[in-house]
Amino acid sequence: MNLDPLNDLILDEATKGIPPGISARLLDVGSMGWNLMRGDVPLPAAVLRESALDHNSRWMQDFVAKRNAVIAPHVKTTMAPQIMERQLRDGAWGVTVATLHQLKVCRRFGIERIVLANQLVGRLELDALVAELSASPGLDFFMLVDSLEGVQAASEAVRRAGAKARPIQVLVERGYQGGRTGCRDNEKALAIARAAHAAPELKLCGVEAFEGLLKPKNGGPADAVAAFVDEIVALFHSCATEALFERSTPMVTAGGSSFYDIVVDGLAGTGAQVVTRSGCYVSHDSGIYQAEQQRILAATGEPVGLINALEIWTHVQSCPEPGLAILTAGKRDFGTDSGLPVPLLISRDGAMPETLGGCEVFASNDQHAYMRYPQTAAVKIGDRIGLGISHPCTTFDKWDVLLLVNDAYGITGAVKTYF
Amino acid sequence: MNLDPLNDLILDEATKGIPPGISARLLDVGSMGWNLMRGDVPLPAAVLRESALDHNSRWMQDFVAKRNAVIAPHVKTTMAPQIMERQLRDGAWGVTVATLHQLKVCRRFGIERIVLANQLVGRLELDALVAELSASPGLDFFMLVDSLEGVQAASEAVRRAGAKARPIQVLVERGYQGGRTGCRDNEKALAIARAAHAAPELKLCGVEAFEGLLKPKNGGPADAVAAFVDEIVALFHSCATEALFERSTPMVTAGGSSFYDIVVDGLAGTGAQVVTRSGCYVSHDSGIYQAEQQRILAATGEPVGLINALEIWTHVQSCPEPGLAILTAGKRDFGTDSGLPVPLLISRDGAMPETLGGCEVFASNDQHAYMRYPQTAAVKIGDRIGLGISHPCTTFDKWDVLLLVNDAYGITGAVKTYF
Repeated sequence: MNLDPLNDLILDEATKGIPPGISARLLDVGSMGWNLMRGDVPLPAAVLRESALDHNSRWMQDFVAKRNAVIAPHVKTTMAPQIMERQLRDGAWGVTVATLHQLKVCRRFGIERIVLANQLVGRLELDALVAELSASPGLDFFMLVDSLEGVQAASEAVRRAGAKARPIQVLVERGYQGGRTGCRDNEKALAIARAAHAAPELKLCGVEAFEGLLKPKNGGPADAVAAFVDEIVALFHSCATEALFERSTPMVTAGGSSFYDIVVDGLAGTGAQVVTRSGCYVSHDSGIYQAEQQRILAATGEPVGLINALEIWTHVQSCPEPGLAILTAGKRDFGTDSGLPVPLLISRDGAMPETLGGCEVFASNDQHAYMRYPQTAAVKIGDRIGLGISHPCTTFDKWDVLLLVNDAYGITGAVKTYF
Repeated sequence: MNLDPLNDLILDEATKGIPPGISARLLDVGSMGWNLMRGDVPLPAAVLRESALDHNSRWMQDFVAKRNAVIAPHVKTTMAPQIMERQLRDGAWGVTVATLHQLKVCRRFGIERIVLANQLVGRLELDALVAELSASPGLDFFMLVDSLEGVQAASEAVRRAGAKARPIQVLVERGYQGGRTGCRDNEKALAIARAAHAAPELKLCGVEAFEGLLKPKNGGPADAVAAFVDEIVALFHSCATEALFERSTPMVTAGGSSFYDIVVDGLAGTGAQVVTRSGCYVSHDSGIYQAEQQRILAATGEPVGLINALEIWTHVQSCPEPGLAILTAGKRDFGTDSGLPVPLLISRDGAMPETLGGCEVFASNDQHAYMRYPQTAAVKIGDRIGLGISHPCTTFDKWDVLLLVNDAYGITGAVKTYF
């Protein structure tokens, strides 16, 4: 991977979070001497605590390595090549993407192993993929098929490109009733696997599934995930028995950010290469994934867990009623799909932030958040409030640039995203 | 206004919606001969129907002109200078923004009249504003105050800049109990108005309010809005009686995208310059504002209304269960805060789209939507589906570039956003 495309990127006030009047190379932002608490950048601003990113990236590598698995982090979460580079440097096996656009961004930065965790459709899209494979002989690429139409469309794209086109490495996708994509049972999945094996334009390399949205059935969601993983294992063995896999060590990939512990345990005995795909672990959050983390730590006995790295900093704009503060950040600045942000910290007059207890964000508009605060919090107009968020994916995509900070909120860099 | 900063902007596949392998000036996208239905651009793609934009921009100008009001469209909706240019060309009096960042983007493109519909806080932010005023003698700028702290902070910023700094034109903000920012009653608002009038660094130019989030009390929301407008009128007269306004014709500004008809009617007799601020009218939608539009047409007797201009086009990626289609667009591509998108159109094999009846998007993830379809719809993998959306603001901000199309889905241009 190489970050050269960032070398010439100039940031200025047209980018949210960059100080007015500045024109600076992205790579020079860390040497400007800015500090968030001193008021050197306009709010709202999105910050990533570098120590937490470091910790999380290494924590997950240790977690999967101890369990004989690897990780191809789902980089749709951040779409930030600088964070991808950190993940790969720390040992990630490859990356996962959701779309052709995301794949092309990763290729621009020279990533050589990519799982597209979807069945690509559309003639232009498939032709572009085949062209990318031809142009990049070192690229180790995998995508999903969950239908005969998908197998056929991918095969035709390879045929359209002529005799020299490389076959597409595919994984048969297993889903579940009421879920998203993927074959609903192993019989259907096996039929797709046979078709992929039979197509000379495709190479069947393994089995894929996404368990992250499973709802509880009889027990908790963990039971439902474990039962689903059992079915994936059965599918894997059926394919192996029929010698459908065209890879020396076939792959099984599953595992979002909620249940990766259950996935790696359940797949451990298969003899497959086990590839997990969490995306949110690297920034973590203060919401849904923080809650999941408690279950994972309890289940695995890991002594420490992930640390929230992502904060949205905002001003108190108005205190129009007792106990009500209106903040200068809203749905344009943080995700709201999995819960509203959580007030974590308060800083006044440039002081280092203190924990902010008893406050709650209870509503948001495009550019504002509504925060209740207790008498004891003594919130004032102009105070800086640091918000934790829930679901990193829908907060990263609100920012063209996030700021890296050290533990004293000195700004050590700027992270560019490609959404 | 001038669009020169767009002249050198090069688009390529790192931008969502731009074809792979292309490198083109933004301004040349319209002459590439692309057509969405022919599959010349990758999906998902966001398109703006140019005929609808044209109609909506002129419709709103006519609407306010007939009622002796003007409009400063809230450009937070689109943050697209090319759309702002259209609005100003069609007669918009100025623009409205929500943040310093948005103000600076408008200034980059030479907009000379801007209402910042917030009370700016933060020393860096206020100093940047004062510097902008000094650097731009032709800029006619207004912002809000809703507290003595706000009056004081703005005054101090002007004093910090020294004797040559221009005073800041301010509007006192009236809110309502349970609402967002703004003084909760006229007594408080009058005190703030007096303070703004007394501060030599500020010029009190009028009264501001935002009624768009008012919830129904006794009657429908329309009654609550009308009652609130009465209070704004009373505040305006109180300020006028005390000769607090420092503008030859003082301004009253209110009116979001839901109740602008009630606002202009209620403010008509004041003698003030009436400035409305709808943002969403220019693209309109297929959700909340389409619903509001029915009330406005019924109330005003206008024979025609706004037309939806904004569509998200996506592929059917998978049909894993009878009647269930998984689409290749999700929360990264459309807003979900005011309702899920609405399937409007279907196109197969490059044909012009047909109306898609009986379908419903019932869930979405980051990169996918779940659509139910009836047996009669015969949806297939690879079909193109055109989605209408609810709440333009939270869809525009998912796109760095939207595509302009004619009525045959020929791509006539590309619109850059600055979020």
